[in-house]
Amino acid sequence: MTTHCNVNVSGKVTLLSAGPGDLDLLTLRAARALACADILLIDDLANADIDTLAPNARAIRVGKRGGCKSTPQAFIQRLMIRYAKKGLHVVRAKGGDALLFGRAGEEIAALRDEGIEVAIVNGVSSGFAAAAGLGISLTHRDHCQGVTFVTAHMQDHGQPDWAALAATGTTLAIYMGMSRIAGITTALLASLPAHTPAAVVQHAGSAQEKRVVSTLERIADDAHAARLGSPAVILIGGAIGEAQRAVSAKGLAHAA
Amino acid sequence: MTTHCNVNVSGKVTLLSAGPGDLDLLTLRAARALACADILLIDDLANADIDTLAPNARAIRVGKRGGCKSTPQAFIQRLMIRYAKKGLHVVRAKGGDALLFGRAGEEIAALRDEGIEVAIVNGVSSGFAAAAGLGISLTHRDHCQGVTFVTAHMQDHGQPDWAALAATGTTLAIYMGMSRIAGITTALLASLPAHTPAAVVQHAGSAQEKRVVSTLERIADDAHAARLGSPAVILIGGAIGEAQRAVSAKGLAHAA
Repeated sequence: MTTHCNVNVSGKVTLLSAGPGDLDLLTLRAARALACADILLIDDLANADIDTLAPNARAIRVGKRGGCKSTPQAFIQRLMIRYAKKGLHVVRAKGGDALLFGRAGEEIAALRDEGIEVAIVNGVSSGFAAAAGLGISLTHRDHCQGVTFVTAHMQDHGQPDWAALAATGTTLAIYMGMSRIAGITTALLASLPAHTPAAVVQHAGSAQEKRVVSTLERIADDAHAARLGSPAVILIGGAIGEAQRAVSAKGLAHAA
Repeated sequence: MTTHCNVNVSGKVTLLSAGPGDLDLLTLRAARALACADILLIDDLANADIDTLAPNARAIRVGKRGGCKSTPQAFIQRLMIRYAKKGLHVVRAKGGDALLFGRAGEEIAALRDEGIEVAIVNGVSSGFAAAAGLGISLTHRDHCQGVTFVTAHMQDHGQPDWAALAATGTTLAIYMGMSRIAGITTALLASLPAHTPAAVVQHAGSAQEKRVVSTLERIADDAHAARLGSPAVILIGGAIGEAQRAVSAKGLAHAA
């Protein structure tokens, strides 16, 4: 197997965006970094086959896939630091884009405190892949002037301010919200009309992708009836209404 | 030159995300689609060298680079339809991710109305690349639970509701705002403290990248003094404050 690793890397950590699903949604730069990896730490939501792109690396799975207990964040950080200090190139692969909801901020701070060089390689976040699956723009200009990516899973176990988020008029892309989708949509119904378009896309960007398009009032029930669960992105807003035409037109293909 | 085009494509359009700058920030899927392109329509903000990845394609520049008048949207759509109906594979390359602020919604609708198959290939939006350049997470969980991508350039020439956007507590990533940055920051100062961290990243994700980190009160002047102009992303929020430590630590490298 040829590796294409022609970069001189030693003693550093690459925070690498593994994208939303299929491995061909990684960037060319990510593929190059993986080819040069000595140690590969694979996160929960990253494609489990990503180690096939890192033939020289020792792969360590640090997620909770398979019902195991999640690897503590502090332990992951210690692993990265230890291997980097040995002069190895550590690649930390995170699902989606590493800079969105990925604890990257804490990891960067920990590495920086140890004087370890950090490279960041961007990628495709699952909210974008969800829109691609639905065949729509996240920000169709007839409907809105932006999109808000928000996690339903807060550090203090509280809730985001749904009324404030609704008041922006932006498309809402809600991550990590499936376990409380009924509560989220109920909260949003206090601010948005019941017929506001809504969708759920599970496993966006992968062969397992499943989609439901509905309304804010019905999406929790419809997603439940279609047996959609985590990981998924919940999309809400006028721009999502374009999906109904798009999907029914049947002209949309996923891959190039 | 070998092309690696081993996909049977004919008579369709691929809306392709060209990423924020450097060509190696394209996805592997995007590179494969380009290798199979017969016609390549290159947008304003896409890397002008993207045609090097499409050796079999006739490249047509449809942006306003070089001071030429912008190609009208309707004309671009007619071009796509005409070539696709000839059985050619048309690749429409847009800067960043095609599904964010890219008129993709209108193009998908026009193609759908003609019964033309559309494939969408996601990519890296410049807001993510800007955060990578600053060495920060967009959503450090000590500071916020999300990020809002918003365009300052509205269809009706109005302004986004800056007070509503500020009230979400999310990081704000403002696109196409450099020509009115003073007005935007003045509007936000009605809702946010003067010392709120702020940054401008021009040409994010490319070798020409320039960055200024400052505060909401000073960023317009500081970006002006540093001669930063379009295209740039303006980032505002507590999470951006991590950039000051990150950049001064000097440990951050861009590429893998």
